[in-house]
Amino acid sequence: MPEFRRDPIIGRWVIIAKERGKRPSDFVIQPERRVGGFCPLCQGNENTTPPEVLAYGPPGRVPNTPGWTVRVVPNKFPALVIEGDLDKQGEGIYDKMNGIGAHEVIVETPDHDQTLAGMPHDHVVQIFHAYRDRMVDLERDQRFRYIMVFKNFGRAAGASLEHSHSQLIALPVVPHRMQEEINGTRKYYDYKERCVYCDIIRQERSQNVRVVCENEGFIAICPYAPLAPFETWVLPKRHASSFPSLDEPGFQALTGVFLETMRRLDRALPRVPYNYMLHTAPLRTPPMEHYHWHIEIVPKLTMIAGFEWGTGFYINPTPPEEAARYLREMEID
Amino acid sequence: MPEFRRDPIIGRWVIIAKERGKRPSDFVIQPERRVGGFCPLCQGNENTTPPEVLAYGPPGRVPNTPGWTVRVVPNKFPALVIEGDLDKQGEGIYDKMNGIGAHEVIVETPDHDQTLAGMPHDHVVQIFHAYRDRMVDLERDQRFRYIMVFKNFGRAAGASLEHSHSQLIALPVVPHRMQEEINGTRKYYDYKERCVYCDIIRQERSQNVRVVCENEGFIAICPYAPLAPFETWVLPKRHASSFPSLDEPGFQALTGVFLETMRRLDRALPRVPYNYMLHTAPLRTPPMEHYHWHIEIVPKLTMIAGFEWGTGFYINPTPPEEAARYLREMEID
Repeated sequence: MPEFRRDPIIGRWVIIAKERGKRPSDFVIQPERRVGGFCPLCQGNENTTPPEVLAYGPPGRVPNTPGWTVRVVPNKFPALVIEGDLDKQGEGIYDKMNGIGAHEVIVETPDHDQTLAGMPHDHVVQIFHAYRDRMVDLERDQRFRYIMVFKNFGRAAGASLEHSHSQLIALPVVPHRMQEEINGTRKYYDYKERCVYCDIIRQERSQNVRVVCENEGFIAICPYAPLAPFETWVLPKRHASSFPSLDEPGFQALTGVFLETMRRLDRALPRVPYNYMLHTAPLRTPPMEHYHWHIEIVPKLTMIAGFEWGTGFYINPTPPEEAARYLREMEID
Repeated sequence: MPEFRRDPIIGRWVIIAKERGKRPSDFVIQPERRVGGFCPLCQGNENTTPPEVLAYGPPGRVPNTPGWTVRVVPNKFPALVIEGDLDKQGEGIYDKMNGIGAHEVIVETPDHDQTLAGMPHDHVVQIFHAYRDRMVDLERDQRFRYIMVFKNFGRAAGASLEHSHSQLIALPVVPHRMQEEINGTRKYYDYKERCVYCDIIRQERSQNVRVVCENEGFIAICPYAPLAPFETWVLPKRHASSFPSLDEPGFQALTGVFLETMRRLDRALPRVPYNYMLHTAPLRTPPMEHYHWHIEIVPKLTMIAGFEWGTGFYINPTPPEEAARYLREMEID
């Protein structure tokens, strides 16, 4: 029999269609294929992007020339513009403001053919450092309230460039979905005086059926009420509400669990399109007892249709227990 | 400059990328094409579906034989099962219950090649009658709290059958998205003692820039803060929280505006995949002063990527004022 499960954070119910019990081989994956052609993110083409705002490389490297390992540039076709005032105003019963924000591209590697799952540990640490460094820099702009880091891999997941990259958007408002998450965790905390994510980690480690992998600092789990098949979360084991406050051993531990998770996903679902999103506290908030930063990884295996769109109600054909078991059983190097 | 706009119902901000100002011809529409092959929804194949639960046709017609105009059958591959108890229970900090529910298919026409936009007025009235009749019947089942009627047209919008049909799911919980809408309208009502949808209708009629069409009973508008290009809502002008309470002149007026809207959309974006969802009050609730039933029509023109998924924040390249103008200017018969 199918099962309704409730997300303990925002209270959303999902349908876990257990019978369908879809395994990796049951999905028609459209593996992302290389098309080629000119790539503005490749080493040597630095002059075809807006000037870089951050790059890691050897001492003495001239900006916007080759030699970098990770490079951050403003998006050439930004959804928001950086210059100007918000100019908040009403329009009858409606509210609007100018589309002020930052929209940046984190070029994860100079090598066009590299994918995240294939990168060395130390290189992925640099990518996370780039996220942190840009967030710390942009937080100084008092107009911004939230920074969202995310990655689209593959056309089916919304990527328009095939060269491995992530994106960052700094927003003058806290997005609805994040506000819901923050409100949900506060409600739980008010009632139980515990962080719901800390409770989840404790229960997952004790039940040990939805854990994908873990090390001393981080854990990867398939959540109890996932929206999508093989959805996986990576969480710090020690409570912390904000990603940029992570210390260096933390970056090492994060990368260990994150990279192992990406490699297991890539082995189970080769070159599957996916999105991941970094969920962290709003800017300039003091540490929150109730909120717990994490990364949500969502492979693109099912479609969002009228039912999901209209109800916010998702039907997931792969129970997370089975997804976690498949991922655990993958042999990786 | 792009613009942030806030949805006055649930408070969600969207980005309206005005510069991009995408017109119908700027979108790469994947028009839905006929593939053919055996169709279980066609007249003559009644024995290949589960037995019908409703059908309109001539007096004396034998059930599950040809001659019907609109026919409703249980979904052969339901997401939920109709038999059993909910058996609500906890699992540590988590909540679950059995996947009890009804999942039905409304076959809108016996003719495989007919689309909604091409149907005669009186036939579309019958489709709405079928929605109403099934909702009234299923409401008697005390296990159900919400009924969602929706339509997926086209593979890109999630339809797996090409024969024109809609679907209905009866649920033992109120979906998250509907609960948000109901909470949002209650909050507005508590503060202003007015229905937010009634306020929207008043402002839209007075500004007259986002109205697509209207008659004495209904109005179609492109909402101020739409998630998607050419998103259009059809609302009753007179306040009512529940669709099944509509009277016969109401069904006529609804069909007039709804069908004109579908024809204008089909003319502007030929055979574009789309979803529509009927938003109505939860089952067995008394009439609500704050909630206002309506239909949301969403053409499938853009993709949901990591940013939208992670933030609940949508970037819409077509301002609703322009969408409404294009739709108004379409010449229809």
